[in-house]
Amino acid sequence: MEEKSMQEIMDKASVLIEALPYIQRFNRKIIVVKYGGSAMVDEELKKSVIQDVTLLKLVGFKPIIVHGGGKEISKWVGKVGMEPEFINGLRKTDAATMEIAEMVLSKVNKSLVQMVEALGVNAIGISGKDGGLLKVEKKYSNGQDIGFVGEITEVNPKILHDLLEKDFLPIVCPVGMDDEFNTYNINADDAACAIARAVNAEKLAFLTDIEGVYLDPDDKSTLISELTVSKAKALIEAGNIGGGMLPKLNNCIDAIDNGVSRVHILDGRIAHCLLLEIFTNKGIGTAILGDKETKFYHE
Amino acid sequence: MEEKSMQEIMDKASVLIEALPYIQRFNRKIIVVKYGGSAMVDEELKKSVIQDVTLLKLVGFKPIIVHGGGKEISKWVGKVGMEPEFINGLRKTDAATMEIAEMVLSKVNKSLVQMVEALGVNAIGISGKDGGLLKVEKKYSNGQDIGFVGEITEVNPKILHDLLEKDFLPIVCPVGMDDEFNTYNINADDAACAIARAVNAEKLAFLTDIEGVYLDPDDKSTLISELTVSKAKALIEAGNIGGGMLPKLNNCIDAIDNGVSRVHILDGRIAHCLLLEIFTNKGIGTAILGDKETKFYHE
Amino acid sequence: MEEKSMQEIMDKASVLIEALPYIQRFNRKIIVVKYGGSAMVDEELKKSVIQDVTLLKLVGFKPIIVHGGGKEISKWVGKVGMEPEFINGLRKTDAATMEIAEMVLSKVNKSLVQMVEALGVNAIGISGKDGGLLKVEKKYSNGQDIGFVGEITEVNPKILHDLLEKDFLPIVCPVGMDDEFNTYNINADDAACAIARAVNAEKLAFLTDIEGVYLDPDDKSTLISELTVSKAKALIEAGNIGGGMLPKLNNCIDAIDNGVSRVHILDGRIAHCLLLEIFTNKGIGTAILGDKETKFYHE
Amino acid sequence: MEEKSMQEIMDKASVLIEALPYIQRFNRKIIVVKYGGSAMVDEELKKSVIQDVTLLKLVGFKPIIVHGGGKEISKWVGKVGMEPEFINGLRKTDAATMEIAEMVLSKVNKSLVQMVEALGVNAIGISGKDGGLLKVEKKYSNGQDIGFVGEITEVNPKILHDLLEKDFLPIVCPVGMDDEFNTYNINADDAACAIARAVNAEKLAFLTDIEGVYLDPDDKSTLISELTVSKAKALIEAGNIGGGMLPKLNNCIDAIDNGVSRVHILDGRIAHCLLLEIFTNKGIGTAILGDKETKFYHE
Amino acid sequence: MEEKSMQEIMDKASVLIEALPYIQRFNRKIIVVKYGGSAMVDEELKKSVIQDVTLLKLVGFKPIIVHGGGKEISKWVGKVGMEPEFINGLRKTDAATMEIAEMVLSKVNKSLVQMVEALGVNAIGISGKDGGLLKVEKKYSNGQDIGFVGEITEVNPKILHDLLEKDFLPIVCPVGMDDEFNTYNINADDAACAIARAVNAEKLAFLTDIEGVYLDPDDKSTLISELTVSKAKALIEAGNIGGGMLPKLNNCIDAIDNGVSRVHILDGRIAHCLLLEIFTNKGIGTAILGDKETKFYHE
Amino acid sequence: MEEKSMQEIMDKASVLIEALPYIQRFNRKIIVVKYGGSAMVDEELKKSVIQDVTLLKLVGFKPIIVHGGGKEISKWVGKVGMEPEFINGLRKTDAATMEIAEMVLSKVNKSLVQMVEALGVNAIGISGKDGGLLKVEKKYSNGQDIGFVGEITEVNPKILHDLLEKDFLPIVCPVGMDDEFNTYNINADDAACAIARAVNAEKLAFLTDIEGVYLDPDDKSTLISELTVSKAKALIEAGNIGGGMLPKLNNCIDAIDNGVSRVHILDGRIAHCLLLEIFTNKGIGTAILGDKETKFYHE
Repeated sequence: MEEKSMQEIMDKASVLIEALPYIQRFNRKIIVVKYGGSAMVDEELKKSVIQDVTLLKLVGFKPIIVHGGGKEISKWVGKVGMEPEFINGLRKTDAATMEIAEMVLSKVNKSLVQMVEALGVNAIGISGKDGGLLKVEKKYSNGQDIGFVGEITEVNPKILHDLLEKDFLPIVCPVGMDDEFNTYNINADDAACAIARAVNAEKLAFLTDIEGVYLDPDDKSTLISELTVSKAKALIEAGNIGGGMLPKLNNCIDAIDNGVSRVHILDGRIAHCLLLEIFTNKGIGTAILGDKETKFYHE
Repeated sequence: MEEKSMQEIMDKASVLIEALPYIQRFNRKIIVVKYGGSAMVDEELKKSVIQDVTLLKLVGFKPIIVHGGGKEISKWVGKVGMEPEFINGLRKTDAATMEIAEMVLSKVNKSLVQMVEALGVNAIGISGKDGGLLKVEKKYSNGQDIGFVGEITEVNPKILHDLLEKDFLPIVCPVGMDDEFNTYNINADDAACAIARAVNAEKLAFLTDIEGVYLDPDDKSTLISELTVSKAKALIEAGNIGGGMLPKLNNCIDAIDNGVSRVHILDGRIAHCLLLEIFTNKGIGTAILGDKETKFYHE
Repeated sequence: MEEKSMQEIMDKASVLIEALPYIQRFNRKIIVVKYGGSAMVDEELKKSVIQDVTLLKLVGFKPIIVHGGGKEISKWVGKVGMEPEFINGLRKTDAATMEIAEMVLSKVNKSLVQMVEALGVNAIGISGKDGGLLKVEKKYSNGQDIGFVGEITEVNPKILHDLLEKDFLPIVCPVGMDDEFNTYNINADDAACAIARAVNAEKLAFLTDIEGVYLDPDDKSTLISELTVSKAKALIEAGNIGGGMLPKLNNCIDAIDNGVSRVHILDGRIAHCLLLEIFTNKGIGTAILGDKETKFYHE
Repeated sequence: MEEKSMQEIMDKASVLIEALPYIQRFNRKIIVVKYGGSAMVDEELKKSVIQDVTLLKLVGFKPIIVHGGGKEISKWVGKVGMEPEFINGLRKTDAATMEIAEMVLSKVNKSLVQMVEALGVNAIGISGKDGGLLKVEKKYSNGQDIGFVGEITEVNPKILHDLLEKDFLPIVCPVGMDDEFNTYNINADDAACAIARAVNAEKLAFLTDIEGVYLDPDDKSTLISELTVSKAKALIEAGNIGGGMLPKLNNCIDAIDNGVSRVHILDGRIAHCLLLEIFTNKGIGTAILGDKETKFYHE
Repeated sequence: MEEKSMQEIMDKASVLIEALPYIQRFNRKIIVVKYGGSAMVDEELKKSVIQDVTLLKLVGFKPIIVHGGGKEISKWVGKVGMEPEFINGLRKTDAATMEIAEMVLSKVNKSLVQMVEALGVNAIGISGKDGGLLKVEKKYSNGQDIGFVGEITEVNPKILHDLLEKDFLPIVCPVGMDDEFNTYNINADDAACAIARAVNAEKLAFLTDIEGVYLDPDDKSTLISELTVSKAKALIEAGNIGGGMLPKLNNCIDAIDNGVSRVHILDGRIAHCLLLEIFTNKGIGTAILGDKETKFYHE
Repeated sequence: MEEKSMQEIMDKASVLIEALPYIQRFNRKIIVVKYGGSAMVDEELKKSVIQDVTLLKLVGFKPIIVHGGGKEISKWVGKVGMEPEFINGLRKTDAATMEIAEMVLSKVNKSLVQMVEALGVNAIGISGKDGGLLKVEKKYSNGQDIGFVGEITEVNPKILHDLLEKDFLPIVCPVGMDDEFNTYNINADDAACAIARAVNAEKLAFLTDIEGVYLDPDDKSTLISELTVSKAKALIEAGNIGGGMLPKLNNCIDAIDNGVSRVHILDGRIAHCLLLEIFTNKGIGTAILGDKETKFYHE
């Protein structure tokens, strides 16, 4: 064998061996992946996310995907010629909009099932209605009715445990029912967080369109690798966290406070970000973890 | 207690007792229900079908619902302003139409889940993509391409057995994938029949918009209660069966030939037709059964 | 179809649908039925009780029958020409009487097994000796020896759980053993109550020869439909309850206090009283329930 | 320790060690014991049989006892002052006699349960009615009706497998039902043989009142230790076997022909005959075995 | 049969019946046997121990053997010409000695497997390294390094429970690993005691070269049959216990204090001492038991 | 992130993704690894083999290691000063040599357990004696007695299935017993092959000291990547295969002929050869496969 190709295959081996302790550590643990943002639009990224999650499944993890509908919902609302109504700058989800939202989310859901099945792994696409997974109550915006937007009040994880036991990869879209069994749209980040808590997930990973959390949002060089819950709270109080990151970070803190071991904010624009975070010595993005965890992960 | 009300409750008791041998006979048996036609449009009928299937589940049967999209698909194709293309009088299911069809079928699917969950039974809505349930190949109409219309080539019933074992009521919409994992629409009757065969169902019931099979289609007094497979074949050969009934009857024959014990063509326009057929001494509609079954069912 | 027969089958359907929430509510719950009185003598009533219990079994409940020997024991004691001895007005159960009592109870026991088996359900007849189900100690009447009459000191429910798990309908006759493994007769009401407590039954139903509990025993129009434990205790203290009803009501209170959800005193002279109580909107007889249950059952 | 007591305990050890290969060989195997004759009358022998069977259970065998009613039935028929009717010298089992027979058999059955329970092992007493264990048809004597005497047509061993799985020692009395669910008395030897076949027993042991099979019935020194099926058939053909031994030997041959490995005719008048046969090097009584078994058991 | 041989087989039966309550009492209980001393040298004794343990296994107990290396280790150290180094009178277990010790212990281990397998029982020989069974830390003698001699810090009983569940007889040699996964020798008595505690054994039996514990070590007539923990402690405090018995007795006390029900010090020089202790009315050796056990065992 | 490090982590991801189809393909399949040669001597190689097998275990394969004793046996035979006797150029394995061989093999066995345990995976070291895994008969060399060298006659894989089910990594040393339970040494290649057949392994991999099979043994450029069984037989017939490769290749052919899907001859001198063969697109060494497999593996 030539020296060069010999070196090359040695490099390959070392990557696989590097993954060994992580595979061992997370074996049979549940990992909830919130899938959204650019990674849902770009076909290459889409494929890379599905490959990553499928690999996690095959090496013994128990991944659950929770996804949103991205920009597809708006697109279809337009297609049927509906006029959106706005309240406090938020679009009102009336019954007709909810109907379209559910259709679009189902379509996205089944397209992910399709991609996982094509890689030879058994997937099943469900919504929060199936098996009564997500119970909600109506959510108001400053006291005003914004339609069928739901706040999760209860998660019944039986269906997820059943599907994991039967070796399926569950893919969940964030639709739920209230006590009267009406349909509601749910924020996908909230759904992922509530599910991670209910199934006692080891990890919760958000695929986002940013690199991670910055100490100074205006200075890309201040990306934070690891953040304890108390430090995260301090950053929020100091007003360093703003925009779309604030609710996401609150979700992360909530998850950690409720038994999830570690939450990751990953840059979904990097192919295979999930795999790289989990299987290599150099993590990417920002990891949020409990105050008591003194030994950091990638050491 | 007054005599009249006493008589009334005695009548109630006798109805329940009448159901006893049927409950006993079909206990833990799989029953596939093809749900379609008027019963999908009228709200009262819809409710009665769901109540029936839920009752079957609760008394120990293992029902599986297979449904179509009814007239909803056409409605939504119109809503987004698409111009249908016709081939041999059949609408071509191009990629855009398929996308809408899948969205509509998913919406219907989840609305059925919702109704079953509201009655306190765990339901799960899946399509033929989930768990690789339905594998198809492209179907041609007289050699012409009619788009993404699939013919079932293989049923992988693992997902259904898993869900039944975990005590769910599976609700299936007829969408499948070919070997390249493309999405195809499938005739709901065909899907119900293929699934009934694959899970070795005890019964397959079609909810239709007719009373049953007639000896003379023009004479409503010639409704046939029970029909052996060989008699059904004779009727077909004699040209007595026409229109939409022909493929349905062929499906019935095919199901019986492949191990399903009995197939029912029921009048879905009668509330609780399913319950009445299964639990009372006087069946309704037409039952198709194997030639060897010498003792008729409702005797 | 004629209008009249159409109406008739619609009525049938509505009876079945009316049963749905009750089937759902008690699914997989244990129901102990104390079978005695007229319902053990009249052949028609006997058949109706067995049909009811068999139906309960088939729709997913887990019934257990506990029965006495009725007047058969006295009849057989007479047949063999034995002279009964009385103490405090109670017949003394000497060894010879006990021998006959056990034989008669076994005969009744197997005749019930026979009837259930004839309806196609697996039954098994046991006594409190089998699997050490009922442990007793000698009972005295005002300090006087009344022979082999036992008071239950311990219930070992393993045998019942094993039989229910293996899908049998257990039929129990009230005979037990003391620490020296001698045979004792046990009051059937006491046995039913003790068993209901030990298996944590959802319901305990007594088939009796009265309509239920009356507010004024002399006025048949004062039948009480539902009675909380504290109200029952008040009635007893007020001296409104007398005769054979007093120990029965005390048994009911004891059962509720020990975890049984609801106890029913039913009129066993009405055919299918059990079915009507459980599956229809209008209960019959008197239901005793805990004080905390604020929502009544048949509402 | 004194030499004498030392020798004594060494002897004890050697008895236990001698049992080792037999325990090993029959571990988890089913052994059907037909219990009858003197061993049912003498209290000491009764106790010894129950101790033996209980020991077999404890060391890992799966014994099933099948017993008759001995002379108790005749005694009780007399007690109630019934006049027996005879046909071909056989007492006719009319309905009244059958009733008493069932009562007596049940009494015997429960007394055996009692003795096993007293030794700390879980027993359950059943008849051929329970779980539909023994199906029979009416038996005629030279074409004449002799009443409710049944010939076994089918054994449904589910109940026995269920009880063995749940670690009970089943004790069976030979009563069965015909297709109309009428009660019949069954010859206990026949019942034991049919059950041994149905459960695929390793051994079937008859406790009798003779030493075993003799080559010459008139010469006690011609007791046969082991007998192959073909040799047994030859003895029968040669007319060497007579009286009550003929049907018993035919039963043995039938059992061996149907998969039971070995049948034993033991002298039930010897205390612990069962234990001695199974656990010691020197068998007692006559063993019947298949022709192909070339290596004898106690060598 | 002759009278003499009849008496003989009756005696055999009585020995087996005598064993019945003990078999019943310890059925499915774990018994840890520390095997050492003369019983490992004499071939006859060796065979008797293995027969005993195999019999225990066959009659439903769950024995675990823990053994040392006896004098074999010294023999092999000599064979390879190594010069032993002594510290405080103890031989230092340097790396080379440890290597030989592990080899010898493995050889002994497999020879025991061999003997058990020859008796038809499935055995598996493991060391404390397998499945991480025994974790140790370095032990010092008066602060001085004596090499690879380990003190048990943690027992991981998973491997033993797995093997018992799969019906193997585990045979364990006392070698363990420290946190750095280095190999250490462990005192076999300590290993047996730690394992008995970790698996919650019912009994722990030491095969020794003495008759038991003496009240006065110099007076063989003062052998103690049963000893409560508090009495044992008193004896130690009073200085009555010396030599090799002191650590052994401390181990016994420690085991009882940690949940083992009874510990036996048996005279391994008596053939079948284990069997005789467990299965006969007259125990041998000394039994140590908790203070609360008021009823003695062999009564 | 810098461009260079970005490229680097992308490369890492692509290696992991490259492994995906292989992980999927061999998930839950058994892989027998014959571990020997240089890979047993060099500490780095030893570590790499153990890492590889551990990784296989963690990602869902079921590896079994079979190892020999390498040059350690000869070394220890020398250490104790034994004079080897030779027959036909083969060392005679007399009883004393066998004793040392077993000790050395056990030592090697436990050292491998130790390394696997250190990587956090549960290992268990057994020999062919445990659970009666390997039954042998005496092997002769040209009719001459060469001592305790055994030829495998029967494999009882129960112990391996039990250990795999309980999630252990079994490590087997090639020692077995004959019908008299004497100890024999077995060729490790033969043992690996027999075990692979008995457990129906998907793969059998030999770690050797050569690159693979050559078309022309004298020309290193003629290394064969894939070889069908018939082609392998042809090479043997043509005399192209010689030396130590001949029996190994015969073993490979035998394994394929008996149900093993693929056998690999790998160069154990390359670190991580096992991982590279299984997880990367470019296999190394020679793969032997059945004639019917038309599609090659690494395509």
